Amino acid sequence: MTQDNGCCVSVCQCFFDYATPQILVIRSRKVGAVNRLIQAIIVAYVIGYVCVLKRGYQDTDSVISSVTTKVKGIALTNTSDLGLRIWDVADYVIPPQGGEVLQRPGSPKNQAEESSFFVLTNLIITTNQTQSHCPEVPTPSSMCSSDRDCVPGFKDVRGNGVRTGKCVNYTATNMTCEVMAWCPLEVDGEPPIPPMLADAENFTVLIKNSIRYPKFNFNKRNILPYINNTYLKQCIFNSTTDPDCPIFTLKYIVSAANEDFQVMAVHGGVMGIQIVWNCDLDMPASWCTPKYTFRRLDNKDPDNTVAPGYNFRFAKYYKIADDVETRTLIKGFGIRFDVMVFGKAGKFSIVPMLLNLGAGLALLGVVTVVCDLVVLTFMKKRNHYKAKKFSYVDDFALLSETAT
Amino acid sequence: MTQDNGCCVSVCQCFFDYATPQILVIRSRKVGAVNRLIQAIIVAYVIGYVCVLKRGYQDTDSVISSVTTKVKGIALTNTSDLGLRIWDVADYVIPPQGGEVLQRPGSPKNQAEESSFFVLTNLIITTNQTQSHCPEVPTPSSMCSSDRDCVPGFKDVRGNGVRTGKCVNYTATNMTCEVMAWCPLEVDGEPPIPPMLADAENFTVLIKNSIRYPKFNFNKRNILPYINNTYLKQCIFNSTTDPDCPIFTLKYIVSAANEDFQVMAVHGGVMGIQIVWNCDLDMPASWCTPKYTFRRLDNKDPDNTVAPGYNFRFAKYYKIADDVETRTLIKGFGIRFDVMVFGKAGKFSIVPMLLNLGAGLALLGVVTVVCDLVVLTFMKKRNHYKAKKFSYVDDFALLSETAT
Amino acid sequence: MTQDNGCCVSVCQCFFDYATPQILVIRSRKVGAVNRLIQAIIVAYVIGYVCVLKRGYQDTDSVISSVTTKVKGIALTNTSDLGLRIWDVADYVIPPQGGEVLQRPGSPKNQAEESSFFVLTNLIITTNQTQSHCPEVPTPSSMCSSDRDCVPGFKDVRGNGVRTGKCVNYTATNMTCEVMAWCPLEVDGEPPIPPMLADAENFTVLIKNSIRYPKFNFNKRNILPYINNTYLKQCIFNSTTDPDCPIFTLKYIVSAANEDFQVMAVHGGVMGIQIVWNCDLDMPASWCTPKYTFRRLDNKDPDNTVAPGYNFRFAKYYKIADDVETRTLIKGFGIRFDVMVFGKAGKFSIVPMLLNLGAGLALLGVVTVVCDLVVLTFMKKRNHYKAKKFSYVDDFALLSETAT
Repeated sequence: MTQDNGCCVSVCQCFFDYATPQILVIRSRKVGAVNRLIQAIIVAYVIGYVCVLKRGYQDTDSVISSVTTKVKGIALTNTSDLGLRIWDVADYVIPPQGGEVLQRPGSPKNQAEESSFFVLTNLIITTNQTQSHCPEVPTPSSMCSSDRDCVPGFKDVRGNGVRTGKCVNYTATNMTCEVMAWCPLEVDGEPPIPPMLADAENFTVLIKNSIRYPKFNFNKRNILPYINNTYLKQCIFNSTTDPDCPIFTLKYIVSAANEDFQVMAVHGGVMGIQIVWNCDLDMPASWCTPKYTFRRLDNKDPDNTVAPGYNFRFAKYYKIADDVETRTLIKGFGIRFDVMVFGKAGKFSIVPMLLNLGAGLALLGVVTVVCDLVVLTFMKKRNHYKAKKFSYVDDFALLSETAT
Repeated sequence: MTQDNGCCVSVCQCFFDYATPQILVIRSRKVGAVNRLIQAIIVAYVIGYVCVLKRGYQDTDSVISSVTTKVKGIALTNTSDLGLRIWDVADYVIPPQGGEVLQRPGSPKNQAEESSFFVLTNLIITTNQTQSHCPEVPTPSSMCSSDRDCVPGFKDVRGNGVRTGKCVNYTATNMTCEVMAWCPLEVDGEPPIPPMLADAENFTVLIKNSIRYPKFNFNKRNILPYINNTYLKQCIFNSTTDPDCPIFTLKYIVSAANEDFQVMAVHGGVMGIQIVWNCDLDMPASWCTPKYTFRRLDNKDPDNTVAPGYNFRFAKYYKIADDVETRTLIKGFGIRFDVMVFGKAGKFSIVPMLLNLGAGLALLGVVTVVCDLVVLTFMKKRNHYKAKKFSYVDDFALLSETAT
Repeated sequence: MTQDNGCCVSVCQCFFDYATPQILVIRSRKVGAVNRLIQAIIVAYVIGYVCVLKRGYQDTDSVISSVTTKVKGIALTNTSDLGLRIWDVADYVIPPQGGEVLQRPGSPKNQAEESSFFVLTNLIITTNQTQSHCPEVPTPSSMCSSDRDCVPGFKDVRGNGVRTGKCVNYTATNMTCEVMAWCPLEVDGEPPIPPMLADAENFTVLIKNSIRYPKFNFNKRNILPYINNTYLKQCIFNSTTDPDCPIFTLKYIVSAANEDFQVMAVHGGVMGIQIVWNCDLDMPASWCTPKYTFRRLDNKDPDNTVAPGYNFRFAKYYKIADDVETRTLIKGFGIRFDVMVFGKAGKFSIVPMLLNLGAGLALLGVVTVVCDLVVLTFMKKRNHYKAKKFSYVDDFALLSETAT
């Protein structure tokens, strides 16, 4: 039956050659059972893991989101500088803008878009600063005993101004170099405890979040359809009683991350508000709702007291009579809230289903490898099967035959 | 020719054993034609889909981008409070910074970097606020008939100040609790229609966008090389007549998203400006140009009138004589423009080409499966072929033989 | 031994059919050597590339990061308008907030989170602007010879105000249309050289960066555990001598990107500070340290002088006697620093190891293809092997036999 072993008889014949492997069929209860068992495992894996758990029959899309935030609340402070003073949203939300949209579709696993707002909780205030001359705050480099210690024009990178060259009294006992600066200088000590805007824990924030899954043309917002104006005017988020209310108290957010608001408010910090929109769009749209979680983002390392918290300086500028510019310098400590939106949606689609089924079924090829191992190693009749499965061309035998 | 079926004769021989499947070659016009047809389909798929459509021969990279924006324009308002007033860019762009760079390389499919700016379009202004006492705005909780209804020191989270404990006339007929607050209080009604800065529709924004594909060391910016200062000074983007001009009127942006600027300006909103840089770097660099599209990002749901639009409060602080701080409170409504840069570039590379070709050609393995199905099921000579392709070890037969 | 070629004798038997390919074993030193060589290459590839280089035995995670920044330094300017003036951080960092957190988990390859701050380096200042009338800056469209050239109420989109309809003297020789605007108008020329805040090169910035790999519950910050307050108070980053100090001088950042600070400071620009946290968490945690690199992000294209640099306008508002609002308009040029955090961590995990090993070993299937090619094409005994490997069903032969 073997033909001539050279090339095909004709090119035409060669073109129509069809090569298919020769197969040995073993009819045996044991082998067959092993075979079917392994097949069943693989089919179960494909259906269970790929189709049910991973939803391999769905096309997926990443969320595109837009966040705006609005803080409400009133705080009262009582200081020697300012007396009784009311702080409202225009005073303590810095910068005033209610949340910028920052999109971030991400890795195949999770996506986020982000927006942040800052609420002032504590401050060191220095009022009525003007451009003038005053003694530098005492540090090893600014202390002096005579004008010779003070180089005129020298700008200490950690100082507050340009040295005039004079050495003047800072207190009755301390002398420091005089600087040209915004005077009087800020006395940069520890922030007040309790924090000045301790009332901030009762502030509320309304988070408006619109999401979109562009591939499925699906839009939704976190103010769910059933929420009406009346509910929205009085509700406060609580993960058990009001899980759909988009209004949060700052204290709740911080507590949910296992932090103490009054402690955190002293030095400030960074909180993450995570909104997760994982939606199965084969289900009713009303099942697609946001889940809120809260986490502290900055490292509160108890062993590491270097530069803790979150603060920055800003100033309000005034012009009083005679065109002199004065300013109020504020070193503001506070909590920055970063709203992060994550989400992934899936919807039935024929192409990913075929791809995943195909990939899953390709695993059926593994069956033969495993079964062969079992059949040819552990079965009693293994030598019988081997004799049928394997043929041999033995060049060593030929050689020895030739040698004899 | 079959050897002893135990282990190899020697370890050496076993090491040099080479196992290759035995092949049955069927020389038949029909079978061969089916075989070659399926092969041709798979090769066409590999070339057509993988190479041409998906550009599988290219290495790809995600865009890294930097965006800056600059708004220009003048608006005129006429109100009883302020009289005639001119608004320029320093007045209506809040915060003033012209676009922050926000990078976001994303999922394998699309990437974006983002930057945003806010243009004030409407406002409720409350001038000359000072820290003092005044009656609260009437709400169910602030209305009172006598001092007993007003708890001193109570801070309503939705109110404007701290109650003093007095019940005073708000109007001739209404009495509300007196609060310590920034007085006079803002009357928080509906924003004016038409919007106060209706002129904002004629504002222009210059968007400067530098992109970079780091893997290919490719840089480009959206001010294309042929654009000179003269053109840039007078051009206005129009998708048909001036598709390369990086200067947009706000009205055009909003209109391109099928929105009405004057309607949107009343309550504010969020607009997306999408810049797409999809580049085939095997082509001349001048073919790599940005495409601009526009979309409204916040949900304008007609059924959902809860908390529409986009607004925030901010204040300008003044000190007048006697060192009293006053402020002008502005509830600003406006449009936030989010510039999002997406992009993906491809360039010929040998490694992804080989990988994709390999994966594509691996599909040729499917040919045998399909052909076997055809040959052994539908061909007239199927039994003849089967007899050649399959050998059998029949344990059932053996058993019955033994039984007899 | 071949059974009846129809269906199985019984469904039961058919169910237990196990099909395995028939194998030809060639025992030959040459063929075996080729076989083992190719196997060795593939195993070496799997171990070397997949396991060692790509760390295929590790599960990976993307960085989640939080960045805050704090700038320090003093600059002195001397202008005719303002006289000697000190600029501190509250004056030149705009907006004041020290870095927003912007997270971006990205493509499988690299991730970044970003935060930015802006330092003013140069400015054109226009003091004491009030809402009043003044002649427009001369441009082709604003020049006039009589009132007839000036349309009252016209707002030039590139102008500074609303025309009153009068044509007035701008200088002794030039006449321009009068506008209602913030007067006096800014004279928008080239920014001063050298830049006004040339001292900004000595400013320092402290970058605090907390990262987290959520999958491995691994937290770290760039202020490494060994850094104490004393070191932090005096250190300055230098890639060779102080690579772990989180305090950078602005000049160092710009120089490291091969730019000249004083040149860049004139028109402004955008700098990228890249922090890379690539960590092998199978190693001690102390090996996981950040690497800092610096790059200019905006396109400094020498051929393209259109709209270079980075600047924006902002104003400080004052109220002087008689309740008149005045403002100081500042066209600020400066450098925006974008802090981008990239990172990927890997840690041993059994699932990805098995997956990668499996995928690698699947390549062993290629061995047979290559060996067959060698054996059947180049070996002397190829016809001998072919005769053993291939069986033939030759329909052409059958046909011709029938024909004869």
